[in-house]
Amino acid sequence: MLRPRRLLILAEGRSGDPHYGKTARGVLRYRPQDVVAVLDSESSATEHEGFPLVRTVDEAQQYEPTAALVGVATQGGRFPPAWRELLKDCIRGGLDVENGLHEFISTDPELAALAREHGVELRDLRMAPPGLNVPTGANLTHGARTILTVGSDCAIGKMTVSLELEREARSRGWRSEFVPTGQTGIAIAGWGISVDAVVADFIAGAAEQLVLEGVERGGEVLFVEGQGSLLHPAYSGVTLGLIHGSAPHAYVLCHKAGERYVDENELFPMPPLSELVDLHERMSLLARPARVLAIALNTRDLDEPAARQAVAETEAETGLPADDPVRFGAGKLVDALEPRSS
Amino acid sequence: MLRPRRLLILAEGRSGDPHYGKTARGVLRYRPQDVVAVLDSESSATEHEGFPLVRTVDEAQQYEPTAALVGVATQGGRFPPAWRELLKDCIRGGLDVENGLHEFISTDPELAALAREHGVELRDLRMAPPGLNVPTGANLTHGARTILTVGSDCAIGKMTVSLELEREARSRGWRSEFVPTGQTGIAIAGWGISVDAVVADFIAGAAEQLVLEGVERGGEVLFVEGQGSLLHPAYSGVTLGLIHGSAPHAYVLCHKAGERYVDENELFPMPPLSELVDLHERMSLLARPARVLAIALNTRDLDEPAARQAVAETEAETGLPADDPVRFGAGKLVDALEPRSS
Repeated sequence: MLRPRRLLILAEGRSGDPHYGKTARGVLRYRPQDVVAVLDSESSATEHEGFPLVRTVDEAQQYEPTAALVGVATQGGRFPPAWRELLKDCIRGGLDVENGLHEFISTDPELAALAREHGVELRDLRMAPPGLNVPTGANLTHGARTILTVGSDCAIGKMTVSLELEREARSRGWRSEFVPTGQTGIAIAGWGISVDAVVADFIAGAAEQLVLEGVERGGEVLFVEGQGSLLHPAYSGVTLGLIHGSAPHAYVLCHKAGERYVDENELFPMPPLSELVDLHERMSLLARPARVLAIALNTRDLDEPAARQAVAETEAETGLPADDPVRFGAGKLVDALEPRSS
Repeated sequence: MLRPRRLLILAEGRSGDPHYGKTARGVLRYRPQDVVAVLDSESSATEHEGFPLVRTVDEAQQYEPTAALVGVATQGGRFPPAWRELLKDCIRGGLDVENGLHEFISTDPELAALAREHGVELRDLRMAPPGLNVPTGANLTHGARTILTVGSDCAIGKMTVSLELEREARSRGWRSEFVPTGQTGIAIAGWGISVDAVVADFIAGAAEQLVLEGVERGGEVLFVEGQGSLLHPAYSGVTLGLIHGSAPHAYVLCHKAGERYVDENELFPMPPLSELVDLHERMSLLARPARVLAIALNTRDLDEPAARQAVAETEAETGLPADDPVRFGAGKLVDALEPRSS
């Protein structure tokens, strides 16, 4: 990137939707210094989380963006057809495009030709790097302490929890690093591998490589962004590969307070949290048994008294420290992650 | 394939190695009618499991092969460099090439050009089909009974067990189908998807698609070829995605008698079998709890009395029917899979 990164976030049709706007929200919260505007042609609002909300690329030009970021994560990662026109508008408007979906834009002949014509770059955040392979075992010998977020479901805030924990740890003087494993984390941190987009056999190998890069970047405590859930009918394979490849010393288990089903599907009843704690500990890499040290509770659908009650109930049920780090700060959870003196 | 399939099995350097010759051995055992010779330039033998053993492609021509099958499965699925010359010999010798490694040959410019020049076809058995996505839920509604082999480790015979069970079931008049999920299964059955080679997010979706194809092929009882192991440090993600996507009604747990470590690595101590039974049952799709109905024991390293003793000990430990279906027949295991009258 030779020019400064001034992002127009493409939140087309989704700026009001907390689930599908995950990438947009993540960058807005953890990399606001890079954002100049948000685009959603279907919204009538004039601002979004303090940023100007525009309806067209033309309208965005007054804020001098240099790149557009695809801000939605659709089920399965495919592009809705209507989006192609918007991407072409961005390219014609002189913007680079950063894309985190499975469907790549840099290898799309039409978009690539248009990008060449207009001298802009197409960056696929999810494109797997070449040369991946299975783990080497270096995930067990690097010397850093690795903490992985795991969850009872997808899209409940594992990345956010990792970012909040890392920020709090860093403020305490820990030499910590956030290790990004998905497109939003990559968009925020500026490096990483989207482990759900690699060849299935190399999930664990990619996770090992990420952890080693976190160490190279100076991390003595690594906060690895979790993906999916061991319970999720579509994404559990990625979750287990990430667990075994990143070889965490400890987990933080993320859960949305009161959730009765996985994937919002009545066919998938949510097990008790204490059972989930046990299941993750048992599914640890045999060479590195890991414990759940804390529960990060997502209480966004509750009012404050109900949230505090949910936290207390979770602590009573699991016997572990619990908190909502977004709402109440990450202090209590990071306290629980202090390496034991033993 | 317009011409008959007369296979030269390329077992280069591995014809004596039971672990790495998995693809070769599978086709030799379950599709012998397609094999005309085996090639291994490093062997001094003249025959291999009843087939002529040759050292060069020239020497093989007397048996009139139409295709060469890459018969080895290396760790990580990459081609040893020396193999390229052998593949070129095959192509120059007028043979199609079937390849189950991760490294594709059909997209290799040099090999593809040579193949065009000599009018032969390069088939990558592991190449993922286009259009894969996440599961639709049709894995829960198709009406067939699905039985998945799972294992305490890789390369201990899950595919073989599925094939033996299916053959026995068919001989009893069940409308059964073997559902191939890896390159050897595909080489044997002539259809399938190598689930370890798909994009990680689509493992479960690919597994669902395979099960539905098994139903379309007339299967009322599906024997799905298992992959990897929930305990394996590299391949566990594929295993869990396959479990959740194929949504089995029941498991057959495969284990190598006496194995003390996973992946032959002392850092990975093998848990007790009864714990493995419990772990697989707990990791079932929440919408379809599945039980382990039998243990398939690989006793190839034991003499017969020791094998019978291992079977008896396994039954005592787990309370489940156990047997080595390759050595003693699949009858007892298939008895355990009869749908209950309840």
